[in-house]
Amino acid sequence: MARAKRIEGVLAPVITPFRKDYAPDAERFVRHCRWLLKNGCSGLAVFGTNSEANSMSVPEKRRLLEALIAGCAGVLMLPPFYYKNVPDEGLYRNFAEVIERVGDERLQLYLYHIPPVSQVPISLGLIERLLGKYPGIVAGVKDSSGDWSNTKAMLEHFAKSGFDVFAGSEEFLLANMRHGGKGCITATGNINPGPIDNLYRNWRSPDAERQQAAITATRKIVQKQPMIAALKATVAHFGNDPQWKTLRPPLVELNSVQEKDLISELKASGFSMPGLG
Amino acid sequence: MARAKRIEGVLAPVITPFRKDYAPDAERFVRHCRWLLKNGCSGLAVFGTNSEANSMSVPEKRRLLEALIAGCAGVLMLPPFYYKNVPDEGLYRNFAEVIERVGDERLQLYLYHIPPVSQVPISLGLIERLLGKYPGIVAGVKDSSGDWSNTKAMLEHFAKSGFDVFAGSEEFLLANMRHGGKGCITATGNINPGPIDNLYRNWRSPDAERQQAAITATRKIVQKQPMIAALKATVAHFGNDPQWKTLRPPLVELNSVQEKDLISELKASGFSMPGLG
Repeated sequence: MARAKRIEGVLAPVITPFRKDYAPDAERFVRHCRWLLKNGCSGLAVFGTNSEANSMSVPEKRRLLEALIAGCAGVLMLPPFYYKNVPDEGLYRNFAEVIERVGDERLQLYLYHIPPVSQVPISLGLIERLLGKYPGIVAGVKDSSGDWSNTKAMLEHFAKSGFDVFAGSEEFLLANMRHGGKGCITATGNINPGPIDNLYRNWRSPDAERQQAAITATRKIVQKQPMIAALKATVAHFGNDPQWKTLRPPLVELNSVQEKDLISELKASGFSMPGLG
Repeated sequence: MARAKRIEGVLAPVITPFRKDYAPDAERFVRHCRWLLKNGCSGLAVFGTNSEANSMSVPEKRRLLEALIAGCAGVLMLPPFYYKNVPDEGLYRNFAEVIERVGDERLQLYLYHIPPVSQVPISLGLIERLLGKYPGIVAGVKDSSGDWSNTKAMLEHFAKSGFDVFAGSEEFLLANMRHGGKGCITATGNINPGPIDNLYRNWRSPDAERQQAAITATRKIVQKQPMIAALKATVAHFGNDPQWKTLRPPLVELNSVQEKDLISELKASGFSMPGLG
């Protein structure tokens, strides 16, 4: 079978709705995914960090995926993240073993570099080795280091080898596109996909710097609060659907002051979520 | 049904043997467990950090547990460890939700404080709240912080409330016993259970300080190398069974220099594993 077309553009790590008893809510999940695709997202990064996917079981993720679709264009894979200070040799063996056991050349594997959370970085040396052994399968990276110099180094070393670099935040979208990147996979894509996608499509336009500043300003408002709780409070408010505020432990919802600050700042900035709810 | 008698003494977080294809090896696992119980361990902390349990699936752990026994005297539970900087409120909800859903008053829950690896600490405030709500179920803690002042604070605050404190290393066994602790759950219990158990039984004897120094010295030799690989190399060598050296990625086996240094230092110290192999 042919490989799927490579992913590009703006992807949201889709937030996962839970009922009060913490069960995943497939209906709200699919509805939010549809809204995202209609409003600027070119793809869905379901079961990411901001999806609380690390608080969900494999069967739960399978059920939600089946409610949504029949296949995937790619897989975003964390390194094993319990054991710390492990050598690159061990991380190489881990990724290689998974690739060998999947045993399907259609696999498109994106490496997930998110050291602030995983505490286990994906080094340039590890990428080089994996890309050398599995070209075409090792398709790219999501760089959520928050360190543009690291994203830039990944682009300089590997972008010409068919290795697609996605910024982990829209804050670096314009810089990423200018250096040969392919887009961004960003938490705030859950609530602000239209303007982010607009910059992605028009990054060569004279208006690009202004657009970058605007989407960064929206992100900075959201980032003042714990991210996942803030995204859910925003969808709950603008979609008039309070159930969205539920988070699985160990995460907790915003308190009333945090929520009031967030919503009033977003409104004051002219933020909207067209067609939600 | 009646609650099981509370666990005390020396427990090993049992190292898990893998075949060359990384499949868990139930036969070697049971054999090593038997050796441990015969040579000083009063209990087995299967599927701990040093068991590479965080590199194993739930079905794999179930199969090994079934090969071994039919029940457990207690459960050692990590906090959820992917999301970082989570509030105690979220950790409380996580433990409380698990306790409520298990819904069995025979549950004996031991909290697992291992911030160097999990990066998510169990605070005194969290223990106080859980113990207040679930006395009798929240049974104790394994403190693998490596910080004796923290272990001491746990003992001072909670030992009198029926909360059993286990040191996460035999290095603190004597101090822990002198302050009302119940023993230790220690990686090197896998290879040195006899002498550690001997100190546990004789901590009030005039010889205790000397015994403490001796078991600490053995631990220091092992700690010069990555711990899990060193334990497996030791069992492989003294049991004449090289298959034990296999680790699951992302962990890697010792290189030949590390292995030679470890074994020669252990031999020079008079270390032995009686009856192994």
